[in-house]
Amino acid sequence: MANKQNIPYRITLPEDQLPKQWYNVRADMKELPDPMLNPGTLEPLTKAEDIDAIFCHELSEQEMDNTTRFIEIPDEIKKFYKMCRPSPLIRAYYLEEKLQTPAKIYYKFEGNNTSGSHKLNSAIAQVYYAKKQGITSLTTETGAGQWGTALAMACAYFDMPLTVYMVKGSYEQKPFRKHVVETFGADIIPSPSDTTEAGRKILEQYPGTTGSLGCAISEAVEKAVTTPNSRYVLGSVLNQVLLHQSIIGLEAKSAMAMYDEYPDIVIGCAGGGSNLGGLMAPFMGDKLKGEKNPYFIAVEPASCPSLTRGKYAYDFCDTGKVTPLAKMYTLGSGFIPSPNHAGGLRYHGMSPIVSKLYHDGYLDEARSYIQSDVFEAAVSFARCEGILPAPESSHAIKAAMDEALKCKETGEEKTILFGLTGTGYFDMTAYASFLAGTMTDYVPTDEELEAAFAKLPQVE
Amino acid sequence: MANKQNIPYRITLPEDQLPKQWYNVRADMKELPDPMLNPGTLEPLTKAEDIDAIFCHELSEQEMDNTTRFIEIPDEIKKFYKMCRPSPLIRAYYLEEKLQTPAKIYYKFEGNNTSGSHKLNSAIAQVYYAKKQGITSLTTETGAGQWGTALAMACAYFDMPLTVYMVKGSYEQKPFRKHVVETFGADIIPSPSDTTEAGRKILEQYPGTTGSLGCAISEAVEKAVTTPNSRYVLGSVLNQVLLHQSIIGLEAKSAMAMYDEYPDIVIGCAGGGSNLGGLMAPFMGDKLKGEKNPYFIAVEPASCPSLTRGKYAYDFCDTGKVTPLAKMYTLGSGFIPSPNHAGGLRYHGMSPIVSKLYHDGYLDEARSYIQSDVFEAAVSFARCEGILPAPESSHAIKAAMDEALKCKETGEEKTILFGLTGTGYFDMTAYASFLAGTMTDYVPTDEELEAAFAKLPQVE
Repeated sequence: MANKQNIPYRITLPEDQLPKQWYNVRADMKELPDPMLNPGTLEPLTKAEDIDAIFCHELSEQEMDNTTRFIEIPDEIKKFYKMCRPSPLIRAYYLEEKLQTPAKIYYKFEGNNTSGSHKLNSAIAQVYYAKKQGITSLTTETGAGQWGTALAMACAYFDMPLTVYMVKGSYEQKPFRKHVVETFGADIIPSPSDTTEAGRKILEQYPGTTGSLGCAISEAVEKAVTTPNSRYVLGSVLNQVLLHQSIIGLEAKSAMAMYDEYPDIVIGCAGGGSNLGGLMAPFMGDKLKGEKNPYFIAVEPASCPSLTRGKYAYDFCDTGKVTPLAKMYTLGSGFIPSPNHAGGLRYHGMSPIVSKLYHDGYLDEARSYIQSDVFEAAVSFARCEGILPAPESSHAIKAAMDEALKCKETGEEKTILFGLTGTGYFDMTAYASFLAGTMTDYVPTDEELEAAFAKLPQVE
Repeated sequence: MANKQNIPYRITLPEDQLPKQWYNVRADMKELPDPMLNPGTLEPLTKAEDIDAIFCHELSEQEMDNTTRFIEIPDEIKKFYKMCRPSPLIRAYYLEEKLQTPAKIYYKFEGNNTSGSHKLNSAIAQVYYAKKQGITSLTTETGAGQWGTALAMACAYFDMPLTVYMVKGSYEQKPFRKHVVETFGADIIPSPSDTTEAGRKILEQYPGTTGSLGCAISEAVEKAVTTPNSRYVLGSVLNQVLLHQSIIGLEAKSAMAMYDEYPDIVIGCAGGGSNLGGLMAPFMGDKLKGEKNPYFIAVEPASCPSLTRGKYAYDFCDTGKVTPLAKMYTLGSGFIPSPNHAGGLRYHGMSPIVSKLYHDGYLDEARSYIQSDVFEAAVSFARCEGILPAPESSHAIKAAMDEALKCKETGEEKTILFGLTGTGYFDMTAYASFLAGTMTDYVPTDEELEAAFAKLPQVE
């Protein structure tokens, strides 16, 4: 065991040791995720050409590529990564001290860039490939706002026009997100809106709705396919996104290796799966190859429990049912989490890769927490580690603290790695509500979930 | 000249090369700043004991120490610094490319901690010494909110109760600052308030005022001296603050030295002088000793132009005239900058050390910019460097860009170093007003300044 004193608080990989390739975990999976299905014909989509109408071609290739283990990061993207990467791997000495735990806690902190989260890792890649193909505008959705901000930054960098559909509940709760996105030159529209067919239909069906990621995706996809030479981009769920996000895990693994460290437990918050999938990728590769056996934990909100209470089934990726169907853990594409739920992780489904790994037992555990417990962990973490975490990230913090406390009971010196995906600067309304004691917890009833499951598309 | 390609985007000092001592520039000054004066007797304050009623003793010692060149950083503070330091020294490759300048631009980025600015460097030191002395509560003022947030973080770390008086204009413009301060467990009160004599008097005299740093200081000082075992702490202006902030310059100098670099020009924004004083300290030391000759530029807002249009005179540090008098560049302690002015740098005076160095010609130049020019530079910087800067820091960005553009004209390959003191996450209202074209610029008239000067205390 390495001496505590020899490991610095922050481990920063030297610039010349930054990953030069992304890691594609599918190449090492025993069984692959089931293919997406065409929403009209329900035929499997297996070639890049099948989805080129939605994604630009190189991203379609990445989406479909189940065999190439390492994919080169283009020079232009590596150049941009130097602006914000490597992100620090932080040894949580202060938290360990506070918890009086023998566990060694590390976190990979992705919040030290202006977009405030890990989303930038995939944003820059997606904009780069679109630009390269000659695409002249992009559309996307954003929930908590992190993805929209990241994409606006990436679009500013490559001078690409962008329209962001932001989930209305978040849009109203976080007015400053709008200004940041606009500072980077993008347009931002609260969703559902009257600017698309899908939006108008949802508004008619659910008047007064605060929206959901699923709705916003429908709008952004429609806008892209009805605008000449435009494409839709998505910040989570997709295979391509997990591929780009593998840089988180690759850096974390290299940084830990500098000090002969390897995690016993890897913890990530899970909304669509982009952070968890990226963080765990290379460690999962080790597990799939039988070289190591880390224990993986996915953490989700009790208000939107796709892994812990969802069905593993084919479902639409959006509410408007315009996207391909994916086999994944889902609450049903019509499920809209309670507006009481602060922050992100509001998606009804889950990355097909993450879903498959969970279904097959490689991703060992999924657990959920109610939001007041998550905010309690967040405040406690902020006060000792000096980082104000995003509510999403705080799910992982809560689980890491619980695991560290278990070690305190058993005396085990486990090494815990978790992903701290972003900062909470734009979530102060939620923090204020927690501090004022007015935060309410919401957990969907079995009846609500059954009702949503009943609307799942009938496939197979 | 070093090869562009060999210098990384971000230079991070290894943890074991972090400064172990602060640098006290007074030890190398040819002439010292004039001593503070007792506000009642106008007698010079020369011993730590003279100011022990306001500051805790070790800070009083540091305030008065004009001779010790290097002062040890206590272990507890070094431990905390590891949470947020070293801050990165960033080579502005993207900005250089955008400006097409032969200049090499570096900036020391102090915004990558949750408080979002360099203020934490002194906050943690001041709380540590207070705790050590057995002080049981602290008070302070904050303008833009950065200092209040930093102090709340430091107080949370050392478990010290804190009351923050926040300039009312900022308090109302930045509601989320309040929530962050509260998340770290401190109380925050908009100033002027009815919780102090000074506040009540100012409210009577200027009903409807949006406040000023000077007012808030009066309130915080009164609260401290009327609360048993309490002390007032201040985030700028003071000698002790510049001492703690020297860590910025020390790190920057070491990081540049790793690549054989040394700045031809050093640029800092200047409100009370804490960042500029800290950044330039070791470089100023080189200049005072005749070893190097960097050119120093202080940048201030045209709406609060203490160096460029103020008087070098004895003045109160606060509006309520309860603090000692300092010899400094001042607009008069009654000067309250226009509420149109967004962000910080609203202080009527200037650090006595910075003032003296400017008066004696070692700090070469002070210049001011109107705020719309500053925000234009900020947006341009954010879009290429990927960091959303605080309005305060953006004054330095504007000056650095102007200097780099001069190099473009002359072909000179100057090395420019500027301080990027913080992030603009809490300044989105100001950004929104700039983007909407509704930002107005305000420059005080000569008559306004003359009226303020007329109220300067008659000393000597």
